[in-house]
Amino acid sequence: MQSPGDALSTPQDAMKALSATIEAVLLADIPGTFVTRRVDRVDLDMAGIPGDCHYGLTRRSGGREPMYPRGTEIRNRRQISIVSVEECDQIAQQLGLDMLLPEWLGANLLISGLPHLTQLPAGSRLLLPGGTGLVCEGENAPCRHPGEIIQALYPDHPQLSRRFVPIAKRQRGIVCTVERPGALVAGDHLRILVERLEWSVVAIGT
Amino acid sequence: MQSPGDALSTPQDAMKALSATIEAVLLADIPGTFVTRRVDRVDLDMAGIPGDCHYGLTRRSGGREPMYPRGTEIRNRRQISIVSVEECDQIAQQLGLDMLLPEWLGANLLISGLPHLTQLPAGSRLLLPGGTGLVCEGENAPCRHPGEIIQALYPDHPQLSRRFVPIAKRQRGIVCTVERPGALVAGDHLRILVERLEWSVVAIGT
Repeated sequence: MQSPGDALSTPQDAMKALSATIEAVLLADIPGTFVTRRVDRVDLDMAGIPGDCHYGLTRRSGGREPMYPRGTEIRNRRQISIVSVEECDQIAQQLGLDMLLPEWLGANLLISGLPHLTQLPAGSRLLLPGGTGLVCEGENAPCRHPGEIIQALYPDHPQLSRRFVPIAKRQRGIVCTVERPGALVAGDHLRILVERLEWSVVAIGT
Repeated sequence: MQSPGDALSTPQDAMKALSATIEAVLLADIPGTFVTRRVDRVDLDMAGIPGDCHYGLTRRSGGREPMYPRGTEIRNRRQISIVSVEECDQIAQQLGLDMLLPEWLGANLLISGLPHLTQLPAGSRLLLPGGTGLVCEGENAPCRHPGEIIQALYPDHPQLSRRFVPIAKRQRGIVCTVERPGALVAGDHLRILVERLEWSVVAIGT
């Protein structure tokens, strides 16, 4: 491994490449809910997925942005949400469920092959073979709404709504923005360029 | 310090706060050059600093984005560039110069009090008292052009143009985008919310 000092001799040197597979592409276009439905593909523009409830160059701030007054217009860094098969299975197991579907989480992409998806650092790129480029904006911090959906589907399981947030923490996937518009296609391979972190860690220590 | 498992009990818990002071605000509005000039303040919109050469919601990709064909329209993650007094002094010393001005680097903000600015992780927020919010998009990887400016100013110093890039690596500051529009004002205090990295580091190790 090269030394941190060499980390940026080129932008590619500065990144570590991972890969994953797009198992499903999903769209949140059902009126009145964030729940998504599977489609074969979606075509992105710079504001996200046209017709999806998270589409937009800007959005209103909420509980995830306590540094701004609630309702402030801010850049939309939550255009596309991604979850992994591995983390959904882990959450399901910890909730005592037989399955946890990406639809219930309002995810736009379900991927496999990147077990620690939620830990992908902000600034990492997710690249599709057709040229589409996404940028990871960080963890999708869990809120209670998916827990309520799951509770309604499993009425006999106690406290699902309350237990979802603590269990989903650091396992609920990431949010991304569009860097280069294009299609998201089910079955496509994802190339993931991870920002190197050695030097960031040094900074946190100071 | 709380455990990584507790990191996202709230978004604020997920971040470590740092602070800095805006020593200078600068604008790149001189035709034909990226060199900036000092102003008292600039007023941002979602595309950056109107009138600045890096203004825009999108830009054409270049050598910093080898994952895209050169000239591809991509989201502009280089709206605003920031350098620190401490890192500029370090670069100047290593180049054998008495000073290195932010103008020569095309910087929009010169700040003090955050010595390791360049190591600030992508996704970190820089917040001004008036409510303006910037998001760190990562290190501003050095290119040769500032070295050529500096060489022209110090003709008696050998090889400045060639030596700038390796010396400026990991010291040349960051690029940011606008999350919440507002003013950037010289003398203002900056509050910096740093994305926590413990769990990212775990992911890199896998």
